Amino acid sequence: MSVQFDRIALIGIGLIGSSLAYDIRRLGLAREIVVATRSADTLKRAEELGLGDRYTTSSQDAVKDADLVIVSVPVGASESVAKEIAGSLKPGAVVTDVGSTKASVIAQMLPHMPDNVHFIPGHPLAGTEKSGPDAGFPGLFEGRWCIFTPVAGTDEVALKRLRSFWEALGSKVDEMDAEHHDKVLAIVSHLPHIIAYNIVGTADDLETVTESEVIKYSASGFRDFTRLAASDPTMWRDVCLHNRDAILEMLARFSEDLAYLQRAIRWGEGDKIFELFTRTRAIRRSIVQAGQDVDAPDFGRPHALDKK
Amino acid sequence: MSVQFDRIALIGIGLIGSSLAYDIRRLGLAREIVVATRSADTLKRAEELGLGDRYTTSSQDAVKDADLVIVSVPVGASESVAKEIAGSLKPGAVVTDVGSTKASVIAQMLPHMPDNVHFIPGHPLAGTEKSGPDAGFPGLFEGRWCIFTPVAGTDEVALKRLRSFWEALGSKVDEMDAEHHDKVLAIVSHLPHIIAYNIVGTADDLETVTESEVIKYSASGFRDFTRLAASDPTMWRDVCLHNRDAILEMLARFSEDLAYLQRAIRWGEGDKIFELFTRTRAIRRSIVQAGQDVDAPDFGRPHALDKK
Repeated sequence: MSVQFDRIALIGIGLIGSSLAYDIRRLGLAREIVVATRSADTLKRAEELGLGDRYTTSSQDAVKDADLVIVSVPVGASESVAKEIAGSLKPGAVVTDVGSTKASVIAQMLPHMPDNVHFIPGHPLAGTEKSGPDAGFPGLFEGRWCIFTPVAGTDEVALKRLRSFWEALGSKVDEMDAEHHDKVLAIVSHLPHIIAYNIVGTADDLETVTESEVIKYSASGFRDFTRLAASDPTMWRDVCLHNRDAILEMLARFSEDLAYLQRAIRWGEGDKIFELFTRTRAIRRSIVQAGQDVDAPDFGRPHALDKK
Repeated sequence: MSVQFDRIALIGIGLIGSSLAYDIRRLGLAREIVVATRSADTLKRAEELGLGDRYTTSSQDAVKDADLVIVSVPVGASESVAKEIAGSLKPGAVVTDVGSTKASVIAQMLPHMPDNVHFIPGHPLAGTEKSGPDAGFPGLFEGRWCIFTPVAGTDEVALKRLRSFWEALGSKVDEMDAEHHDKVLAIVSHLPHIIAYNIVGTADDLETVTESEVIKYSASGFRDFTRLAASDPTMWRDVCLHNRDAILEMLARFSEDLAYLQRAIRWGEGDKIFELFTRTRAIRRSIVQAGQDVDAPDFGRPHALDKK
């Protein structure tokens, strides 16, 4: 793979930023990587991990002469980053982000972007429940989707350059408008996380069942939810606050459906319950067929005999 | 391991029954295994898999001279099985089950059990989202909990024999009363399954986001729910109908908590959201520390580079 950008500035160096750093280096996608984060401790850790060529706590410094700027911060911090970097961006630079909500990021960043840079909002659908620079690893983006939500009048050449960059990381790139992105992600990602956080909270609050019982017997279903509920609280708080309308819409539908199911349970309507429980099996099959999940039972978690 | 029961009758030969068959054979826990299921097709498949020594569609025949009878059927079928086998049970036989709800199974079976057999309700917390005799595998019960909910006056010797049997399968045995079991399982297993089924149904019904989008982008959270939502519909319908009160109680608490979270999202109360999202992380850590789940990101699902 040839160098695609002379200098890349990574603003934010958590799970996503650090994974980008590993792959930019591994694949030779830049001559120089500049790492910026507000926290001196995180910056020190990034340096210990050897993630960049230069390190700074100033995003303003980091973006100077950078040909590609990737903002990987909780979405609620987008506007302050945009304000900080706006005056120092190199003319012709491509500025992108990795935020999980797009209409809000555009509203926060676009007004501050100078006319002579190419701001292209993006969202790699990649990550794990871990966070921070130690959570990153090479290959995170391989085989995963990256969604661009370009604003009107986006330069086609810049768009193509950014697309090539993500494809070099192994991603498949899709484009859609920001509002549709936010609705799609509300159901495939935001609602699942919120529901997972919620059920874990409910279990934690019970008086009749102890926390140690919940933990001890969690393998019978509950533990599947705890993975999502262990995700970064700052990132997910910001997602909730910045994709509010789409999330509230999905929550309303979810609650309505749950009330229907609850009523069926109360009144012993086995046929209604059975109909739903059968329909959902088909979706699992489609996801496995589409290569979006493993078919192995229990997500392929090891069973006792496998370890021997 | 020495032979513990001369003849074991397995009533029902799905995921649990077939896994029991593999392990009873592998560990030499019985001289003879009799397999019974109502469906001729399933029985044929069990025979092709070589799960037993004798095969019959009559549970009445199967239990004759059996020293241990294990009923592994959807909990709603417990009473009809009890009625069928009651007149043919060997005096002194141990009769147990593997049902996910216990108060209902006791209510369905106990009245039909003759005085000269030992009926001990049990529940191995083991399984996967797969079902049927092809889903079984050796070692399913190893390292997992099996909960007994003995009724008053249970013979200590019979209890000890059954405990030794499950321990020989590698399980850890706990005892509690049936009502408490049903509350514990409602939160650690039944509610997670119901929520998973529900969210998958909600996603399936959207008009604004297509099913193909849900499938395509499911790795960003949604897919974690589809595993539970692919579980056996008959089994789970019966669980809903037969642990109704405990499930409705947990559903009410879950919905109440969700309404609180929804309100916090609507009114932008980031601190409330952050507090919950932080608290839930600790529970994940405890579950991993207790050896009840893997610590590997994404449940240890392979990432692209791992496969190379």
